[in-house]
Amino acid sequence: MRLSLFTDYSLRVLMFAALKGGPFSLSEVAESYDVSRHHLVKVVNFLAKLGYLETRRGRGGGIALGMPPEDIRIGMVVRRTEDSPFIVECFDKQHNTCPINGSCRLKGALSQAVNAFYESLDRHTLHDLVVGPAGLTMKKKLLPQQ
Amino acid sequence: MRLSLFTDYSLRVLMFAALKGGPFSLSEVAESYDVSRHHLVKVVNFLAKLGYLETRRGRGGGIALGMPPEDIRIGMVVRRTEDSPFIVECFDKQHNTCPINGSCRLKGALSQAVNAFYESLDRHTLHDLVVGPAGLTMKKKLLPQQ
Repeated sequence: MRLSLFTDYSLRVLMFAALKGGPFSLSEVAESYDVSRHHLVKVVNFLAKLGYLETRRGRGGGIALGMPPEDIRIGMVVRRTEDSPFIVECFDKQHNTCPINGSCRLKGALSQAVNAFYESLDRHTLHDLVVGPAGLTMKKKLLPQQ
Repeated sequence: MRLSLFTDYSLRVLMFAALKGGPFSLSEVAESYDVSRHHLVKVVNFLAKLGYLETRRGRGGGIALGMPPEDIRIGMVVRRTEDSPFIVECFDKQHNTCPINGSCRLKGALSQAVNAFYESLDRHTLHDLVVGPAGLTMKKKLLPQQ
């Protein structure tokens, strides 16, 4: 059971944005996590399209959160960043070859479990992830100059 | 969010074994699902090692369930068949490069969600998946001769 790297990086960028509290550059977040800028370009564009981030050009511009961190539910973010909603073959109608499709109870059991996964994540907002002493420690590690 | 093909095939083989109710051959299950025998060899050996299946050689031998289907919890099977317990990079201590590891609250939120996923699956036994009208329909599709 694995989430995509795209999801992993999306959550990291959102946490960075929440900890930063103001505009930052792509290079800044890429250097802080020591990951390639190239990977993060797509992540930032995607999150900006969904309104989670805002990107402004010019002086004083940069990347910033597009909505309050209290309004960003983690389950909702991950539902959107996961590129494949197909936990196993039979969830993909176009490429399903399983002969018991349509009568198989496993599909229902797996759907319930996937929902339980996202509902559990929805109990956390971006704000919850970055407040308190843990947030301060993360801030020191990611934003040593601030 | 995706489970491995190994998990998918493991669950299908167990369902086949429960529907069959007696010994069967590797070719039989491979043909029923129209998947390669080669893939299923590893699956059957793994499930036999864990005691979920029994394999007997010789006349009257074959593959069969190694324990009552009521005792096989689906979450427990999937915990064991998933080769990677690392939902994102930071779950893998040996290959973790994230600088906020140790103070990041996301890891805890993801752990809870993974547990919620498995606990939801644990509410279903192999028996639950194959009883009733849905079980009969699956039996007709997988075992037309019976």
